[in-house]
Amino acid sequence: MCRLRAIKVRGSDASMLTGVQVLLIGGDARQLEVIRRLSELDAAVTVSGFDGLRTLPDGTVDNELRDELFDKADAILLPAVGTDDNGIIPAAFSNSELRLTDAQLARVPDHCKVYAGMARPYLKSLCASRGIELVELFERDDVAISNSIPTAEGAVKMAIENTDITIHGSSCMVLGLGRTGLTLIRTLQGLGARVLAGVHRPEHFARAQEMGAKPFYTRDLLDHAANIDLLFNTIPTMIVTAQMIARMPSRAVIIDLASKPGGTDFRFAEKRGLKAILAPGLPGIVAPVTAGRIIADCVTQLIMEDISARGNE
Amino acid sequence: MCRLRAIKVRGSDASMLTGVQVLLIGGDARQLEVIRRLSELDAAVTVSGFDGLRTLPDGTVDNELRDELFDKADAILLPAVGTDDNGIIPAAFSNSELRLTDAQLARVPDHCKVYAGMARPYLKSLCASRGIELVELFERDDVAISNSIPTAEGAVKMAIENTDITIHGSSCMVLGLGRTGLTLIRTLQGLGARVLAGVHRPEHFARAQEMGAKPFYTRDLLDHAANIDLLFNTIPTMIVTAQMIARMPSRAVIIDLASKPGGTDFRFAEKRGLKAILAPGLPGIVAPVTAGRIIADCVTQLIMEDISARGNE
Repeated sequence: MCRLRAIKVRGSDASMLTGVQVLLIGGDARQLEVIRRLSELDAAVTVSGFDGLRTLPDGTVDNELRDELFDKADAILLPAVGTDDNGIIPAAFSNSELRLTDAQLARVPDHCKVYAGMARPYLKSLCASRGIELVELFERDDVAISNSIPTAEGAVKMAIENTDITIHGSSCMVLGLGRTGLTLIRTLQGLGARVLAGVHRPEHFARAQEMGAKPFYTRDLLDHAANIDLLFNTIPTMIVTAQMIARMPSRAVIIDLASKPGGTDFRFAEKRGLKAILAPGLPGIVAPVTAGRIIADCVTQLIMEDISARGNE
Repeated sequence: MCRLRAIKVRGSDASMLTGVQVLLIGGDARQLEVIRRLSELDAAVTVSGFDGLRTLPDGTVDNELRDELFDKADAILLPAVGTDDNGIIPAAFSNSELRLTDAQLARVPDHCKVYAGMARPYLKSLCASRGIELVELFERDDVAISNSIPTAEGAVKMAIENTDITIHGSSCMVLGLGRTGLTLIRTLQGLGARVLAGVHRPEHFARAQEMGAKPFYTRDLLDHAANIDLLFNTIPTMIVTAQMIARMPSRAVIIDLASKPGGTDFRFAEKRGLKAILAPGLPGIVAPVTAGRIIADCVTQLIMEDISARGNE
């Protein structure tokens, strides 16, 4: 029913975005995948912040970021980090400064939504004050789970680079059994590592056990510090403390995947001569095309659902 | 019985190398693991070619390569590549030129054996002319299988570095189901790749199928060129031909693990703009400690068996 209404309203296939006006501003190689996908789905894509590229996907043309671009936008797509604290939108393929302003957002149609990987206070308050819905894609479970795959592969690459042993046969510790932790355990086991999993909750303990990892509660972390070759942290609070590092073998390598500033006492690790690396944001670095596809999959699905819902109103 | 005799002869535990004279010449970080293991087993280790290191494992001292060092050697350990065509023994930790000569080998006891990763004609003929048994460790199945693990991890690292997609969900082709091919298939599957396996023999076809890979006969290789993201070759004859490369998608990356010169038409790949990388000798680069342990495990076992056999004579 809902899909049929959507077809009537838009006069096209419900699995297409024909006639939908999308304004995509700034970003890196990931956004090229998003542009590609939107064009494939026949959306009317207007882009800004790509003047440094000779060719854009599917004949898309770069535009100067004029206020009029916002007038008919059904959706505004910002890059992974949204804007900075001054409203500047990062753009890897442009030297121009792109700034998102209140005057611009004042012009968008009522139903227009803003999509970004994540949002800083500037973007949040700008959207809130204009009553515009802001979607933080990286907050979504589906996107976070998909992103955990390139994160895990990036972590594997760093582990291979920074040790002189194989992951196969090594003793790995994974702290946190969230979306990234689960993927990491599977990935490391797939390579033949023995995996210790540090968890908080009994259901995570049971899951780690089911996966063939050796679970322990993080309150007992210090008891498991010996004989670790690689420690992967996904917990965004100080957990790999000086006390923990002091008990780890000096050959061990710490790869901290938690968002900045990570959960490791990096200063102490350096003092003890232990390699410790903070590695946030791996998907865009390690596999920009896959990371772009993850964003494209999600954002096109959300826009489609949105059209369908509006068709029903 | 045999073990008991060995114990009597050497006056020590059969699992030790007490009193055994080992002369280890040249090599890289891998040989440090070998020195460490031999020392642990109480062998009398004499080393040469490590004067660039401040400390050697377990108090071992570096020696100039004098002819007298050969007089009592029960075993001579050369590095992975043995010697070059002029008898020069590569030594990563020394600036001195180490040369293996006929005069040196003339001095060794009758039972002395020479161990090296592999041997060029110079080393082969030198040993043959003196009737000295030469063991090429990398020719052994056990060593090759163990070495396939760091090889596969190195290949994974290169794949992550050279693509902008994840291995997870990608289409990988593995050519050859030998020792490295089998390990690669398992490793790639462990990361969530779909694996096509190009084989020659029906038993390899069956094995690839059993592993959940999609097997095909290499005579039909061209039919499977489309839609490959990553091609890993382990076959040391020209198999990834210009014809094959022409049919592969331009995004594909070729990682050739066969010994030099590989099995890829690199000139044509470059012309077509396809990334193609020849990557032999990965274990020593990617995981020197693991690679060293593999050599150490094998060589100590062989020396032990040798003592035991001599004890029985």
